[in-house]
Amino acid sequence: MTVRLQIEAARGSARAGKLITPHGEVETPVFMPVGTLGSVKGVSQDVLEDLGVEILLSNTYHLYLRPGIETVRRMGGLHRFMAWDRAILTDSGGFQVFSLNDLRKVSEEGVAFRSHLDGSAHFLSPEKAMEIQIGLGADIIMAFDECTEYPADRERVRASMELTLRWAGRCKNYFEEHRHEAPWARSAHLRRPCGSGAEPALSGAEGPRSDGAEPRHHTEATQGLFGIVQGGMDHQLRRESAERTIDIGFPGYAIGGLSVGEPRELTREIVESTLEHLPSNQPRYLMGVGTPEEIAQYPQAGVDMMDCVLPTRAARHGLLFTSEGKVSIKQVRYAEDDSALDPACDCRVCQRYSRAYLRHLYASNELLAQVLNTVHNLHYYLSTMRTVRTWIRAGRATTPQVS
Amino acid sequence: MTVRLQIEAARGSARAGKLITPHGEVETPVFMPVGTLGSVKGVSQDVLEDLGVEILLSNTYHLYLRPGIETVRRMGGLHRFMAWDRAILTDSGGFQVFSLNDLRKVSEEGVAFRSHLDGSAHFLSPEKAMEIQIGLGADIIMAFDECTEYPADRERVRASMELTLRWAGRCKNYFEEHRHEAPWARSAHLRRPCGSGAEPALSGAEGPRSDGAEPRHHTEATQGLFGIVQGGMDHQLRRESAERTIDIGFPGYAIGGLSVGEPRELTREIVESTLEHLPSNQPRYLMGVGTPEEIAQYPQAGVDMMDCVLPTRAARHGLLFTSEGKVSIKQVRYAEDDSALDPACDCRVCQRYSRAYLRHLYASNELLAQVLNTVHNLHYYLSTMRTVRTWIRAGRATTPQVS
Repeated sequence: MTVRLQIEAARGSARAGKLITPHGEVETPVFMPVGTLGSVKGVSQDVLEDLGVEILLSNTYHLYLRPGIETVRRMGGLHRFMAWDRAILTDSGGFQVFSLNDLRKVSEEGVAFRSHLDGSAHFLSPEKAMEIQIGLGADIIMAFDECTEYPADRERVRASMELTLRWAGRCKNYFEEHRHEAPWARSAHLRRPCGSGAEPALSGAEGPRSDGAEPRHHTEATQGLFGIVQGGMDHQLRRESAERTIDIGFPGYAIGGLSVGEPRELTREIVESTLEHLPSNQPRYLMGVGTPEEIAQYPQAGVDMMDCVLPTRAARHGLLFTSEGKVSIKQVRYAEDDSALDPACDCRVCQRYSRAYLRHLYASNELLAQVLNTVHNLHYYLSTMRTVRTWIRAGRATTPQVS
Repeated sequence: MTVRLQIEAARGSARAGKLITPHGEVETPVFMPVGTLGSVKGVSQDVLEDLGVEILLSNTYHLYLRPGIETVRRMGGLHRFMAWDRAILTDSGGFQVFSLNDLRKVSEEGVAFRSHLDGSAHFLSPEKAMEIQIGLGADIIMAFDECTEYPADRERVRASMELTLRWAGRCKNYFEEHRHEAPWARSAHLRRPCGSGAEPALSGAEGPRSDGAEPRHHTEATQGLFGIVQGGMDHQLRRESAERTIDIGFPGYAIGGLSVGEPRELTREIVESTLEHLPSNQPRYLMGVGTPEEIAQYPQAGVDMMDCVLPTRAARHGLLFTSEGKVSIKQVRYAEDDSALDPACDCRVCQRYSRAYLRHLYASNELLAQVLNTVHNLHYYLSTMRTVRTWIRAGRATTPQVS
């Protein structure tokens, strides 16, 4: 068994269901908060559980540099290391390396790059990206791709797409040979869950104080490797990339190479045309998107999974999303505003604190500002997705499809 | 009714009981975490409640500069502003102004000083310090004193002590005339508590969404103004300061002017000799102390209340207190240490995370490091005080004394 999507309702192109992973079920469509270094900045894991987070995204590139893959692997994998027994997805490191610009050099074999921390030299290849992601042990791992720059001419986009396709094949080959090497895949315990919330299908994380239960062999759960569709802003190349990635064969497909500077309308066109060429019974993941409007809209086009640093990063800069629009909490107009940040919000921040207090915390550089702002923005995103799922399920029911 | 101590058990000089305040009862001896700007850095109020915090200390000087006293007053006082319905103590600002060194000038009338933030000119007098603290509305407020520098000759210490005594009289006079002006003291509502935990005697805080209940007049609860004993490192002057402060008459007494650079053994001698001259049936507050050892030791000499920035400040620098001694979590030796920070600790951090993860968070400058480290250190201090109280209560029971 690997990762699969269980579709339970549909409405037009939209669908709602469950993503079944080795670490529990994830209600879809889902927004995945970003925990770059194995932590959603400022928010403890029990609060993430309370918020209803069922899957987190972590960044391979960052974890590779700190604390290093061998450390995470020796500590039992990322779930156990960060004491999180729900699902995790890791990216391949490709996008981060892509964003290093002058510090990278791409070849057929892979990408040579220098660390943004200390300038040290490193090399990522499809095989290395697989080895690392298997060592981290996320439930869903991503093929190593080249994120094509924007703008780029058609020849460049095609060459880049072809490279990504060759790398996708190499990723799959390596993964097929090593898929049982995830830290939790061989001698996993039936472990005590760390926190509240649903019982995971397989708990790979535990607190540092194990109850010493005997190891128990479990069902043959393995990680799921997703392929990534590239092809720049060219509908024809996107279609070709989708078809040839599907030919290689993955349990899920991502749309990559977007939000790289192109107009938002173009993003939307490319997403919609690409979705038409992806299997309807498998998870579809739109990478790095988006704004509150986008995470509400793309599921209607058939997207199942999204992630973005926006809610967490904006929170740390005092930009808050509410049912009444954006609030820049640093503004002096909120200095004596006794009302809740979002009167329609039932998060623990809006239930307890006033705009005046949040403004004071932010203006005074208090740590708690970043903590509370992040909790609210995450709740806003997760709540938006709950509304989207309810909207889909309120539509025409569909015969459950099993991949 | 104002603040009073209800002694319920004694063992030698030590006593255990309850501090009765307008915002609930506080088990004593108590350690008060410091929330300088109306926030314990990085820790949300619900977590403080879960930790069992029953009283917080906030700093008048800092709140005076940001967000400003008028703002807090207009927002209903500090309890309501920070959504904290348990007890609060504010210092007078004297100690902070004292520490400004070159930025201050002391006269009979008060202290002229410049803000450490922007250099703007300000003036604090006994009357002004009272006006500010009444505006903030803490349950316990402190007389405006001069913290005598160390070392100082006897003439200087006596002159400083005499000034503090004159200021104490002015504080009391102003307070007696204005004690009913606390933001919650006149038209207080019987308000919905914000969080879990014990029902407060008077809830002065509420979430931004009031349930619109009708105002209800309550018992005549007012703030309690504590006097401060000075007298440098001179036993005779300490005795005189204590006796003359008691002559002025306060519901509680603090020992100030310590931890200003003197040897720790001298601190201890002065504390113990000063305690002998304080009323046995009223709260005794040792200001700005101390280390984990000190907060366990001073209650044995008869101290009821203590505060210190050490647990929270050290936490933010990666210095953690455990049953096995101090742990500097930044050290590489913890990079792959899968054990709990403190195997004997039942806090939410030690129950869930490993030293390896905490070390990773700290080494990577993750916000969560400061959050989790602070939660653990506070739990360590509060747990130490619980043990102290249990130790006292296990001793000879005493006839309850009521002030």
